Amino acid sequence: MMRGEKRRVSQVVSKVAILGFGTVGSSVARILCDEKSQGIELTHIFNRGVARKRADWVPVGVTWTENIDEVLSSPVDVVLELVGGLEPTGEWVRRALGSGKSVVTANKKLIAEHGIALDKLAREKGVHLYYGAAVAGGVPVIPGIQQGLAGDRITRIEGILNGTCNFILSKMEEGAEFAPVLKEAQKLGYAEADPTEDVGGFDARAKLVILSRIALRADVAVKDVSCKPIAEIAAIDFAYAKEMGCTIRQISRAELKDGRVLAVVGPMLVPKTSPLAWSRGTENMVLVGGAYGGDVVFSGHGAGGHPTAVAVVSDLLAIAHGSRTIDLPSMKTAVSADLLVPHYIRFIVKDRPGIIAQIAGALAEQEINIHAILQKPGYNKTNLPFVVIAEPCSGSALKCALEKIAHLDCLLEPTLDMPILDAENLS
Amino acid sequence: MMRGEKRRVSQVVSKVAILGFGTVGSSVARILCDEKSQGIELTHIFNRGVARKRADWVPVGVTWTENIDEVLSSPVDVVLELVGGLEPTGEWVRRALGSGKSVVTANKKLIAEHGIALDKLAREKGVHLYYGAAVAGGVPVIPGIQQGLAGDRITRIEGILNGTCNFILSKMEEGAEFAPVLKEAQKLGYAEADPTEDVGGFDARAKLVILSRIALRADVAVKDVSCKPIAEIAAIDFAYAKEMGCTIRQISRAELKDGRVLAVVGPMLVPKTSPLAWSRGTENMVLVGGAYGGDVVFSGHGAGGHPTAVAVVSDLLAIAHGSRTIDLPSMKTAVSADLLVPHYIRFIVKDRPGIIAQIAGALAEQEINIHAILQKPGYNKTNLPFVVIAEPCSGSALKCALEKIAHLDCLLEPTLDMPILDAENLS
Repeated sequence: MMRGEKRRVSQVVSKVAILGFGTVGSSVARILCDEKSQGIELTHIFNRGVARKRADWVPVGVTWTENIDEVLSSPVDVVLELVGGLEPTGEWVRRALGSGKSVVTANKKLIAEHGIALDKLAREKGVHLYYGAAVAGGVPVIPGIQQGLAGDRITRIEGILNGTCNFILSKMEEGAEFAPVLKEAQKLGYAEADPTEDVGGFDARAKLVILSRIALRADVAVKDVSCKPIAEIAAIDFAYAKEMGCTIRQISRAELKDGRVLAVVGPMLVPKTSPLAWSRGTENMVLVGGAYGGDVVFSGHGAGGHPTAVAVVSDLLAIAHGSRTIDLPSMKTAVSADLLVPHYIRFIVKDRPGIIAQIAGALAEQEINIHAILQKPGYNKTNLPFVVIAEPCSGSALKCALEKIAHLDCLLEPTLDMPILDAENLS
Repeated sequence: MMRGEKRRVSQVVSKVAILGFGTVGSSVARILCDEKSQGIELTHIFNRGVARKRADWVPVGVTWTENIDEVLSSPVDVVLELVGGLEPTGEWVRRALGSGKSVVTANKKLIAEHGIALDKLAREKGVHLYYGAAVAGGVPVIPGIQQGLAGDRITRIEGILNGTCNFILSKMEEGAEFAPVLKEAQKLGYAEADPTEDVGGFDARAKLVILSRIALRADVAVKDVSCKPIAEIAAIDFAYAKEMGCTIRQISRAELKDGRVLAVVGPMLVPKTSPLAWSRGTENMVLVGGAYGGDVVFSGHGAGGHPTAVAVVSDLLAIAHGSRTIDLPSMKTAVSADLLVPHYIRFIVKDRPGIIAQIAGALAEQEINIHAILQKPGYNKTNLPFVVIAEPCSGSALKCALEKIAHLDCLLEPTLDMPILDAENLS
């Protein structure tokens, strides 16, 4: 404790600039204007082509500008970076911190890639860098972990961190196929025209890297975390999953084990009894496993203007009211994708005698045991889906086996494999 | 922002005393000893009859004492109050704060009754009073709200805040009756020999009062919040609830409406689609509804030595690392129990003609409409349970109607009524 340091109530007003007046930026401005947050004065709004952005409900004293230098050279105390992307925003954030301004950002990409360097810069300059909105939008996962779970030793994170994928998969759970649901998500504004960031797992990966740093105190390189797209999941997989008492979700999982981080993002089977199976629509959910406190679950709206704005304004209030987070150190840590869990492996084949024997042989070579083989009736032998459930095995051993199996002439489609989480809870 | 105030990393060591070496106190000591938390030095352990408490894994330098004055006159920086109860702990906490020591407490009763006065004292003395462990144990609801949702305007809290009741009701959901499940809970150590605090709703009420202060920023008097026991719930009520797509949980609910707090603790029907229905066993869950961010859910272990200790150590780290919460003001607010929701009303009668007419008449006098009447087959006419679902009505109007109905000679047992939450989500 800082002996002799007194509790203080903020009396000084913080001057605040918003960079980026899109959905989140305008929601932040709305909250600041409507709620009259104590000790906060919005002074600048920056946007390209700012003329078309002007809103009449913003106080007349606010400066609208498309000149970033005007913001960065002004006596603003806190810059809210809500533009996104690595550059030029990275440069703006560095310049803001460098000139003694605190920064609040919702930019998961920037924080995942450069968060450590930016945090170091902020420390050196005696200012703050907060990014609660970068993970799970309005769900207070980052402050919940940093303040509320600081006393635990967190060993595991399992999250539903991408609302687009969760929307698609929870619709597919009701019977739809991937392509039409993706189209619906695009129509509703939940998915981009190019959905790769979401569907490919890259958006969730950036968030998982940030959570690993905060919860596991492990610095992992973004590119070292393997991502698997959800695009190969078909309705048949939900049918088989259901038979096993499971559903399918895009899960971002990181676990600290023997000094390494086991991290992976992709579709996985989760038992219907798991909280992860409860998430519906664009909801986000994060399960944090601690050595002392056990599992804690956070869930809510992971995206959208207002929920994300709540996280931004909360961070701003923390800075303005002189609140501080508990700073615990993180350490550079190696990453592996070798989760030792059971796997779901789905084949689509032109049936002929000997297929199971060949597949079982390739798995046995890697010392992978088969737990069960599932084959729903009613499919044509010339286009036959069936599923092998493998006992707990490492992803790398399975990969070797599947590479060998890929050469079989009977395979009509690439084989799909997914980890099965929490398999001990299967009914 | 405190202009010119620099970010600091704690270098001073905080001396810490534990008051109460029971389940939580010894878990806290265990975490402090095993995790070697930076900047923390355990110096005193206080307990009555301390000789029988000594543990060999505690560092030899720690002073074991049964003399509270020895602790309070020592140069301890932070006192962890884990004894519980209003007195003499209240006096100890006041003396600790008064002598410039910060206090971390898990004492919900003390904080619910005297939190505002104690917080004022802490302010005056320039020290800190943290009580994250007082609500939902290891689930970081208080820091999650204070830090992560400070930017929202929270209008509603719905919580499962008592693990004992949730254990009993989730067992009853599987078909058991109240009395034997209570016995099982007592055997497992989940319920006290005198279960009134838990089963009567008083434990949950103290937590709801604390959450109202933090989330709704409304100071309400503990005695003003009405409590209903769960003891009258029978297996038949779960059968009817199931028929309606619901289950039954002890819910603590507070909502800010027209400048008043609508607050009530007791058994309620919740749709199976609601997160509140997912909680199992001794789990705690809190749903926080914000004007901007929508619903956020927190869940996890609400009690037990280790989870509660995580909350205590997190608060201690916050103080030791110079972290500060966002201090937002709360206001004295009137309380009403008049939740305007549909109600479940269960009668057990000796059947005769005209009962429904009399009941319907008494309800109509209070302008309460009947939505449905449910009567499961297979019961004896001399001891017949049936259920009336009333359209949204205030608790006070319903009370008047039920007082009139209580005089009917056909009633074999007191009538049971429960609010139905989230009725729009009923299947």
